[in-house]
Amino acid sequence: MDDDTTLRKLVEEVTSKPGYTSAVGTRVVSVRRGNVVFELPRRPDLLQGDGVFHGGVITALADHAAGAAVTTSLKPNQFVVTVNLQTSFLLPADGELIRANATNVHLGTSLATASVEIAIPRGESSVLCAISTVILKVIARK
Amino acid sequence: MDDDTTLRKLVEEVTSKPGYTSAVGTRVVSVRRGNVVFELPRRPDLLQGDGVFHGGVITALADHAAGAAVTTSLKPNQFVVTVNLQTSFLLPADGELIRANATNVHLGTSLATASVEIAIPRGESSVLCAISTVILKVIARK
Amino acid sequence: MDDDTTLRKLVEEVTSKPGYTSAVGTRVVSVRRGNVVFELPRRPDLLQGDGVFHGGVITALADHAAGAAVTTSLKPNQFVVTVNLQTSFLLPADGELIRANATNVHLGTSLATASVEIAIPRGESSVLCAISTVILKVIARK
Amino acid sequence: MDDDTTLRKLVEEVTSKPGYTSAVGTRVVSVRRGNVVFELPRRPDLLQGDGVFHGGVITALADHAAGAAVTTSLKPNQFVVTVNLQTSFLLPADGELIRANATNVHLGTSLATASVEIAIPRGESSVLCAISTVILKVIARK
Repeated sequence: MDDDTTLRKLVEEVTSKPGYTSAVGTRVVSVRRGNVVFELPRRPDLLQGDGVFHGGVITALADHAAGAAVTTSLKPNQFVVTVNLQTSFLLPADGELIRANATNVHLGTSLATASVEIAIPRGESSVLCAISTVILKVIARK
Repeated sequence: MDDDTTLRKLVEEVTSKPGYTSAVGTRVVSVRRGNVVFELPRRPDLLQGDGVFHGGVITALADHAAGAAVTTSLKPNQFVVTVNLQTSFLLPADGELIRANATNVHLGTSLATASVEIAIPRGESSVLCAISTVILKVIARK
Repeated sequence: MDDDTTLRKLVEEVTSKPGYTSAVGTRVVSVRRGNVVFELPRRPDLLQGDGVFHGGVITALADHAAGAAVTTSLKPNQFVVTVNLQTSFLLPADGELIRANATNVHLGTSLATASVEIAIPRGESSVLCAISTVILKVIARK
Repeated sequence: MDDDTTLRKLVEEVTSKPGYTSAVGTRVVSVRRGNVVFELPRRPDLLQGDGVFHGGVITALADHAAGAAVTTSLKPNQFVVTVNLQTSFLLPADGELIRANATNVHLGTSLATASVEIAIPRGESSVLCAISTVILKVIARK
């Protein structure tokens, strides 16, 4: 297997674990070292009262994508936990799915920072709905 | 009905609308002008792989609580939408439920800011797991 | 010396070091374990074009206060550096001085979180102008 | 004058107003619609005790750059004020100057969001030291 296939397998494994991320229907779109793309299709229980994706659901996807983007650059015995989540909402996320594109901006010995863009696909293009910055703690498994 | 009962009814109405917040099982604990408390009981689909509440779920609860805290101080024709969500995670949210205590810190003509503490109850006391600052836009219905 | 006097000495030492914080005229108001208060008097070079305190100056004061609040709780061989600074501006900081009240919200083994309120004194009371959340990394000197 | 010259003149005017931004020595590097670059040379009174640029000074530069980036896209009767400043620090800003590259990510009717990268130039390249997200309120002059 080449590297990206190994990384994709790793990210799919983390994404399919029982829990919130798999329960809401998060899909892995692409994985390469330092960058991942996820999609989350619309479902009634992921929306706000006004029919757009809930801000917390958007933030949860950003969090997962950020963690995955950083994870693709970690050493085998390391993992990350989120320390700070910050999301700015630009436009209502009104569409059939949201797509999160996360990039590992910086990986230090004890902390990592990822940037995430959350967009709604519109044909060939997409509408940027939110941007997140996520800070994660790098932990070494004993 | 005294004021808090009216406010509680308003908050319960918003909380029980079809969508994410009601689907995850959010409960209204208390409501007064400028402050609300919500609880969210543990459920397998709200956790991370390691069995603690997912950071996005915590942030979503903080968002809803912030919106409700501000809503209790709005004029009848106003509503709010979230502009920025920021959550700092202090400790893993490992417990039977998370409780969000949200306070309307400032309400201007076009923006509001709320602070939220998210804790895990432990007997009479509780353990603070996360703090959020939420900025909301105040919109007048036409 | 009792504990608070020792802590105050430590905070005054850090605050008077050559650099930005001392150059702008930061004053230590009070120091106790986990909480500090600083003041910064108005000066033309600390203002925006419209005559109120510059948002960056407010944030810098919040940063210094957060660092000091956490420092009062550290072990002798530890120090902190700021990882993330987040400030929400509530009202223009229009007054003769700004006062930052910083509290150490959580101190872990590798990270700390502090909350800061920045206010303008008005007689006996004060007007809250901004709130900050600051995340800091705890480092052990070798 | 072509458009960018007009915009540059506007940005230089705002940057040279008496106050913090001009007092610290902020320099306009480039201006085009939706994107600006500023530099701030090292000076003893802009540093922390450990000799790197102070986090508040970095944040203040990010704030100014964000405001300018949005301002280049405003209508003539509009201006902006900062609502929320968030900076993640990646590496110590240890160099002869810091450079802020700010992009207007979204401009709505009442709010705007800008992303800022703060780097230290190193020969042809540069080292990314911090990233900021800035939310601004768009106000119409009467």
